Formats: sequence, C-alpha cells, structure tokens
Amino acid sequence: MRYAIGIDFGTLSGRAVIVDVSNGKELATAVHEYQNGVIDEFLPGTNIRLEPDWALQDPNDYIEVFKTTIPAVLKESGVDPTQVIGIGIDFTACTMLPTKADGTPLCFLPEWRDNPHSWVKLWKHHAAQPEANQLNAIARNSGYGKILDRYGGKISSEWFFPKVWQILNEAPDIYKAADRMLEAADWVVWQLTGKETRNSCTAGYKAMWSKAEGFPPTAFFKALDPRLENVVDEKMSRDILPLGTRAGGITEQAAQWTGLKVGTAVAVANVDAHVSVPAATVTESERMVMIMGTSICHMVIGESEEIVPGMCGVVMDGIVPGKPGFEAGQSCVGDHFQWFTENCVPESYENEARRRGISIHQLLEEKASAQRPGESGLLALDWWNGNRSVLVDVDLTGMMLGMTLLTKPEEIYRALIEATAYGTRLIVETFQKHNVPIRELVATGGLPDRNKLLMQIYADVTGLPIYIPEATLIGGLGSAMHGAVAAGSKAGGYVSIVDASARMARLRKLSYQPNAENKAIYDKLYTEYVILHDYFGRGENDIMKRLKALRASIQIQSNHKY
Amino acid sequence: MRYAIGIDFGTLSGRAVIVDVSNGKELATAVHEYQNGVIDEFLPGTNIRLEPDWALQDPNDYIEVFKTTIPAVLKESGVDPTQVIGIGIDFTACTMLPTKADGTPLCFLPEWRDNPHSWVKLWKHHAAQPEANQLNAIARNSGYGKILDRYGGKISSEWFFPKVWQILNEAPDIYKAADRMLEAADWVVWQLTGKETRNSCTAGYKAMWSKAEGFPPTAFFKALDPRLENVVDEKMSRDILPLGTRAGGITEQAAQWTGLKVGTAVAVANVDAHVSVPAATVTESERMVMIMGTSICHMVIGESEEIVPGMCGVVMDGIVPGKPGFEAGQSCVGDHFQWFTENCVPESYENEARRRGISIHQLLEEKASAQRPGESGLLALDWWNGNRSVLVDVDLTGMMLGMTLLTKPEEIYRALIEATAYGTRLIVETFQKHNVPIRELVATGGLPDRNKLLMQIYADVTGLPIYIPEATLIGGLGSAMHGAVAAGSKAGGYVSIVDASARMARLRKLSYQPNAENKAIYDKLYTEYVILHDYFGRGENDIMKRLKALRASIQIQSNHKY
Repeated sequence: MRYAIGIDFGTLSGRAVIVDVSNGKELATAVHEYQNGVIDEFLPGTNIRLEPDWALQDPNDYIEVFKTTIPAVLKESGVDPTQVIGIGIDFTACTMLPTKADGTPLCFLPEWRDNPHSWVKLWKHHAAQPEANQLNAIARNSGYGKILDRYGGKISSEWFFPKVWQILNEAPDIYKAADRMLEAADWVVWQLTGKETRNSCTAGYKAMWSKAEGFPPTAFFKALDPRLENVVDEKMSRDILPLGTRAGGITEQAAQWTGLKVGTAVAVANVDAHVSVPAATVTESERMVMIMGTSICHMVIGESEEIVPGMCGVVMDGIVPGKPGFEAGQSCVGDHFQWFTENCVPESYENEARRRGISIHQLLEEKASAQRPGESGLLALDWWNGNRSVLVDVDLTGMMLGMTLLTKPEEIYRALIEATAYGTRLIVETFQKHNVPIRELVATGGLPDRNKLLMQIYADVTGLPIYIPEATLIGGLGSAMHGAVAAGSKAGGYVSIVDASARMARLRKLSYQPNAENKAIYDKLYTEYVILHDYFGRGENDIMKRLKALRASIQIQSNHKY
Repeated sequence: MRYAIGIDFGTLSGRAVIVDVSNGKELATAVHEYQNGVIDEFLPGTNIRLEPDWALQDPNDYIEVFKTTIPAVLKESGVDPTQVIGIGIDFTACTMLPTKADGTPLCFLPEWRDNPHSWVKLWKHHAAQPEANQLNAIARNSGYGKILDRYGGKISSEWFFPKVWQILNEAPDIYKAADRMLEAADWVVWQLTGKETRNSCTAGYKAMWSKAEGFPPTAFFKALDPRLENVVDEKMSRDILPLGTRAGGITEQAAQWTGLKVGTAVAVANVDAHVSVPAATVTESERMVMIMGTSICHMVIGESEEIVPGMCGVVMDGIVPGKPGFEAGQSCVGDHFQWFTENCVPESYENEARRRGISIHQLLEEKASAQRPGESGLLALDWWNGNRSVLVDVDLTGMMLGMTLLTKPEEIYRALIEATAYGTRLIVETFQKHNVPIRELVATGGLPDRNKLLMQIYADVTGLPIYIPEATLIGGLGSAMHGAVAAGSKAGGYVSIVDASARMARLRKLSYQPNAENKAIYDKLYTEYVILHDYFGRGENDIMKRLKALRASIQIQSNHKY
C-alpha cells in the first residue's frame, strides 16, 4: 500500500488529507484554524492599526498546520509513515512575504515585527492598488503591453510585483532587509525541505513569468522604479520548477513536526485553484472547472495560448504539462450570500428556520426554489466585491433593480444567485469567442454540495451541463496527487499528473442538466444583464467609481475631523 | 365660544377633531378604524376573490366614523353641540362609488352586493390601468392633449373616469343601474346634509374639470366609448361648488348619528392633501406643503396657471380661492421604509432595539444619523411603487447601487431616505423651472414627527428650510377650518379660508435649516441621481418595463399551469 498526503492552505485554515495512491480514496482529514486568521485591523498583540484594504497573515500559523494536521491524519488513518510516498501542498495566491536568506520571515524578528510590511501579505490585501495602476500604465506605455495581454490586459493589485513595490514604497528598510521575497506557497515547501524552490504556477499566474520568456526584462522593472531593477536576481529566482517536480525531501526538523519519514518526497508548491483541476478529473481542454466558494475561480485548459480579454492569466504548463492553463474569476459569490444572510434577512425568517431546525441558507433556498426564473422581476450585477473577469475592475460595486413593495427576501437572494450565474456565463462566452472552447462545467468547492438550487441555476443560465467531482477536499486531493507525482513511479507514484488524475480522481453520478424552458427565460434576462454590465462597467456611466471616490474623500475628511 | 369639527377620512380609519374656532386649538380627537379596511382579497363575507390591483372599501364604514367619532369628541371636549358652528370633511381621492338616485350605494343592495364593481373603488385601486392608457392615447390623438397637460401629461389609473370606464367595460349592468357616480368625499357630505353636492377640488384634480372650461366636451367622452358620451349629465353634475361653500345643514338623521344640532353648517367635501395646505399656514405662493406619510403629496399655490411636466394637476381655486393650486407626488416614501424594516432588517438589529426598548425605526435612524452624506457609497432610485412625479409611470421599479460586502442595513436605510429626498428635489426644481417659485417647505403628515434625520436630509438635499405646522391632525384641522368658513362670519366663523388659516393655523418653533457642507455633497449625489433617473425613466433603457412584462408573462403561465 502507498499513500500520499495533501495540504490545502486556505484563507482561514489549513486542511490535510491522506489518500490511497492507487485510487485516490480518502482515509482521513484534519483541519487547523489559523490562530491569527486574517489580520486586517490590528497587528497581533499590538495596538498598531492597519490601513483600509490591508490583509495580513502570520507565517507561524502555516507551520502549526503541519504540526497538527499531518500527525492527525496519520493517526486517524493508521497509516505507517513509511508507506507515505509523497506530500504536496497548495496555497492561496498571491500570498507573499519577505524573509532573510535562510527563510526566516522578517516578522519573526523583533526588529521588524512591529512593521506591518514584515508580515505575510494575504491574497486579498488590496492596498497595493496605486502600485498596480502605475505598473499597468507604465507597462502599457513602455512597450510591455503584450505581457499584460497574457493577464487579461491588467495586473491585479493582489499580485506579486504590486505587493513588492508597495513594500519598497512604504517600507524601504523592510525591502532592503528582505533577502528573499516569495510566495507563502514556496515558503512552506522550504520549511519542509530546507531548500528554497519556486513553482511555475505562482510565477506564471502571479509574477508575470512565462516559460517562453521568463520574467519581464530588468529594463521593465527599472521603468517602474530604478530601485526595482534587479528585484528578480536580488530577491527571487529564475529557477522555476514545473508542477509535480520533487522539491526535496522532508528534513529532520519537519519529520519531528509531522511524524513523516526524513526524505519523504515533497512536491513543489501549487495554487489551490490550479491543483483542483486534475483532482476534478480535468486534464484536457473544453471542460471548465469552477472552484466555487466565497469567490469562483474558472479554470480551463486550452490547446493553444490565446489572448482572452479580462481573464486572470494564461500560463503554459500552468495546470498540466504541455498545455496552456487559463484562469478567470468572479470576486464575490459565496460572499454575496453570506453578506445577504448577515445583513438582509428579517427576524421572521430566522424564527422560521429555527422552528424547523434548518439553516437560514436552507430556508432561503427552499423559498427561492419555489420561484420561476423571471418571476421576481429583479436583476442584479454581481459586483459587491468588484469585478475580476472580464472587466478587471475592483472599483465596481453592486447593483440591483426591479424592487417593488412586494419584493421578498428570497427573491433578492435568488437574484443574487442569478447575478453570479450571469457573471459566469459572460466569462464562459468570452472564452468561447476567443478560441477556448468550453462544452461542460465541473464544479467543486464549498458551494456545490450545499446549494442544489444554485447549481441548477448555473446550468440553466449557461446552458451547459455541470458535473461534480467525488472528492470533497479537492485541493488536498490535488496536492496529494502532486505528491504522488513528485515521488515518481519507482516509489509507487505516477509519472505525470495526467496519469495520477486518471487513477485518483472521479466524478459523482449526480449532475445538473440545463432545463430548456428556464434557459429560454434566462437568455432574455442575460441580455438585460449584459446591457447593464456594459453600461456601468465599460465607462458609459462611471457612477460606481465616482461614488467610491466621493466615499473615500468623505472618509478621509471624517478621519481628519474626529 | 365657537367650535368646529373636522373629519379626516384616511385609507384605514376616519379621525375627528374638535377645535376652537378663535385659535384652532385642538380640544379632543377620536379615531375609528374601518371594519372592512382595504378590501383587496375577498369581498366581505364571501369567497369572491378580487383580481390583482383591486382595492375596495365599504361605504358603511364611513357612516360608522360619523356615528362614533363625533359623539366621542363632543363628549371628551365637553363642548355643547349648540356651540359647534360648522363641520368639514376631507377624504382620500379619487375614491368613488356608484349609487342610486337617492344616494344608496349599489353595494348596499342585495341585487348588486356580490359584484365587486358595486363597491367603493379606493384611491389605490389600480385595475383601471388599461382604461387610463386608452384614455390618454385617445385624448392625445383626438385634439384633447391640452387637457392632459393640466395633469402633467397623463391621467392616472387612480382617477375618476378610468374607474368609471372600468365599471362600464367589466360590469355594464352596474354602470346602467348607477343613477349617480361620485366621489366618496361628496357622498359622505350627502349623508350629513341629505343633499348631493360636488366639490371643485375632486372635480378639478380627479375628474378633468376646470373652472374655465368645465368638464371635457361630450365629444371627448364619445371618442372614448359611445356609451360614455353623456356620463357627466346622466350620472354626475356640472354644478361644482368652491371649497368652503356651505353644502347644507345636518339632517335629523345625521343629528341622531352624531349628536350635532340639526342645521349645523356642513362644508362641501375636500381632499386630504388639499385641506392640509391652509392648515399648514399656507395660503400664498412660494411655500410648498409636503404631506409626508406612506407617500408624499407636494402642494403649492401659484400666481398663474402654469403647465409643469409630470405634476398631478393644476386647478384654479383648487386649494384656496382665486389662485391655481398645483399638486405633485411621490408614490412611495414611508412605504419604502416600512418595506425595508419588514423585509431587510436582520435579527441582531431587532434584538438590539428590543434590548434598548426602542423601535426598529428609531434604531435605524440612530445608526443612520452617525453616517455622513456620501459615506456609504450607495445611491437608490425611489421607485419601489413606480414614479408619480415627474415621470408619471407606474411601471418603473426600485434600483440601488454601490453595495459592497461591508454595506450595512442602516446605510441601505439611509440611501432609501436620500432617494426619496432626491425625488422631492426633482419635483421642486421642475416647478421652479416652470414659473412656480418655491422658497421654503412646510412638512406635515406622519413622518416629520417621527424622523428628524429624514427631515434634515430633505433640507440638506433640497437646500430649502423646512417648517412644521403645530397641528398633528392636520387634515382634521383643515376640515374644521372649512367648516368654520361654511358657517360664515355671522355665525362666528370666517369669510374665507385665508382668514381662517391666519387665525387657526400655526407653525412650530422647530425648523430644519440646510447644512451647507452636506448640501455640497448632496449636490454631487443628486447629479448622479438625475443621470440614472433619466437613463432608466426616460426610455434610454426600459429594462424595468421589460422585466415587469416578463414577470407578468411568467405569472400568467404559472397560473395556467398550477
């Protein structure tokens, strides 16, 4: 018997799974909530207040995940550590940190600990927007526009170089003290193997690297800021390893933390969304994987490197070897519904849910299921957290119309679900129009299990069938699969992720097929969505940006006043 | 000592007040809730279901108001009936009914009682929309457009002739059996005096009558429907009496009901909004009265009969003698906030309000007061119940934008308040642009007393000071004032409503003055409001109508199916 372990580092916790390498069967799982979670108000243990749009993490929380979850799954499964052939990890991205040359995070050092810039910048740290804007403008005006085109035309404030640049601008001493700047994904692999490695997935999707051209030239970084000219050579690495590569073996130290054997194969780091694709059975083109949780990542493999407006990125070998991997996304999906239930559901509904012993989401789903498409007269734009694809604009905000005095909470709830489905359809159609065919959807993440209505609406709105992978801890399975590939076939693992996927990943019998009658109504509503999407999103009426700018100016005045 | 009684017939109840004629001081009030309230599901005591958009009332409920409230205020005040010199009434309008020649409502007769068309059609009965649409089209195409211009360009489905025409179309036997068709306002005066009279206010604002031209010519009615050609002469009256006229004296029968002396002067009927204007101290131009409750009526006296687009009507002598009275309105104001608190306020807020022993409106107002204008980034269109002025379009619906994942209920609540204030500003500016100057606002109705934040927002948004009349039962006071005018100066009353207003009506010391800093921000937000108002309301994007039509078609399908 051969086993592999996958660790999925999420926004609030790390989750481990141990699986049977021969068939992907899950033997045990464990979760560790990060003690410091998302740090967005005060630096831990201090009264140092963070500015708006900041989001940090504590790298020690990641080590704790190894220390608690790996022993837990070994114990629960009863697997002998000698039978664990490999381990893989996946991480949120771009989540990055500055370290010393030996990998010590600057925030571990008393000297830097009180400076927020020494901590991990979480993917959803949005305070580097000015740097992102400048980077995009300079790239476009200095002949590097083609690089941007690989990323839907814009680099996001969430990505690597805006974050690095923000450190340089706001804390040049931290920038100077940082021997290394790297993805937390690569950092945790370093902690297991004692060796710094860099993976092709985060480099490609988040740090403007491509297999064919490498990083942008030093002249580009110089154009941004002369101090950044040699950022790659000084603080990063040009040695980028493909997914599934063996990064190294478990060190003595890591063996003590985890109970694994010294030398156990560790795969190079991967990203949560990307690692999920082969775990969702997809290693070929035309089958889009949606990782549906607080937000949606749309992942699709192509046959050729196409430029698709508004996607998050295309990276050769970014998902599976030899093919371009495309990524797009919606910023706010589960988050929409969570916001709604926390802020907009009346007490009578809460009482009814309690009386019947069901969750408020279940109650709303039940009530919303009784409605037919178009029956509420409502239409929303799904931009409560901006628009990632295809507009790539964080300054857009939510919109809903059609309300009357008879509008019910479940109608608003359903309209929010529908809005996110229209957003997905727009992404699917944008790919299709740019030579990246899509004929079916495979949905994973937290939402598909909990919300049948949502899944049916997505099928009806897109007109595509939706399949669901068997694995529930999809990132963990994908990471374990990469661990099995890193171990190699001689150790009882696999030669490639395609082989691993064929053996270890499966779909459920359950699927969602589009209902033609509903589709016909949704076609009309989608037409309306697109009109408003373009009106508010493509510059015809920039009211959302003006209101946001006004709000920001008022908040600044208020801060000065009180 | 001389006293007058005013009775204000509202949507759910009738309220009486007895006041001192010398100074308007209120001695006692009484309320009677209509037993059958608003009839919009089943005819009372039957399983006869009403169609959507119907709203009826039972005329017996009005008689009960006389029987209970007048004895109650006489008793509570201790006033001797011989000291009551006059009585006036005001009513919702257009609230109308078919009767026999002696005034007996057709719905009192067993023969007709099971036919919904024999009952009172309440002002908010909206089922005559097809007739209103046809009337407007025919008027515009047959050379009667100038009549429509006096009503902002369109006759509403709420008004007299659409309602009459609906009876004719759907129940021609009722139409035939009706010797008289009249406003409930005139009908209750008939019950007190034994004599049919018709008042200039409802005739002017609701039945297309004008002092200069009378009713539209018979050719107009013939163009609508040959059977309507002689509707005025057959079922109405061309003898239209000015406000404040003595309609007659209390009959034996009415004296038995009320305890008043036989022969006590009764003023001709009036409308709730219009009667409130002199009671709010306004008998001259430039001071707009807002009656603020579930909706807002905007009343302003002019110096000349101007055509203002989108107003509800202009009627010479319609409010005070010798001057044109203008009316405009917003369909949904208090109703907005009520909808919001019933459908959108989370349990945690309800718990906090309960814990602190305050109402949910108070809690929301407190939280919303802590925000500065523009700070939420939200903007709404106040069309949850369509738009009365200036677009005159019941098919428009609500819209809100600017929501983020941090948007709080109190921000949505405040945005709804602000939206209604922008709607009022648009009405004010439309009057101002069309030679009806307005330099201050006088606010009455249920809202000003309960919601200081709302009043301040209206002052800040419009840039106008707002004053509040002293009287709380403003309609009742206005009616009592008209009763004192009907009694005449010889009986200790007044020669005119202008005199009565000068003596009997007063403002409070409290007023709301615009804050210049807030006004500057609201100017920006109002500009945004106007852009969206015109985009969604003036045909650039008729999405609201298309969604409503789609909704209607789905509902029809559903009805056929289930």
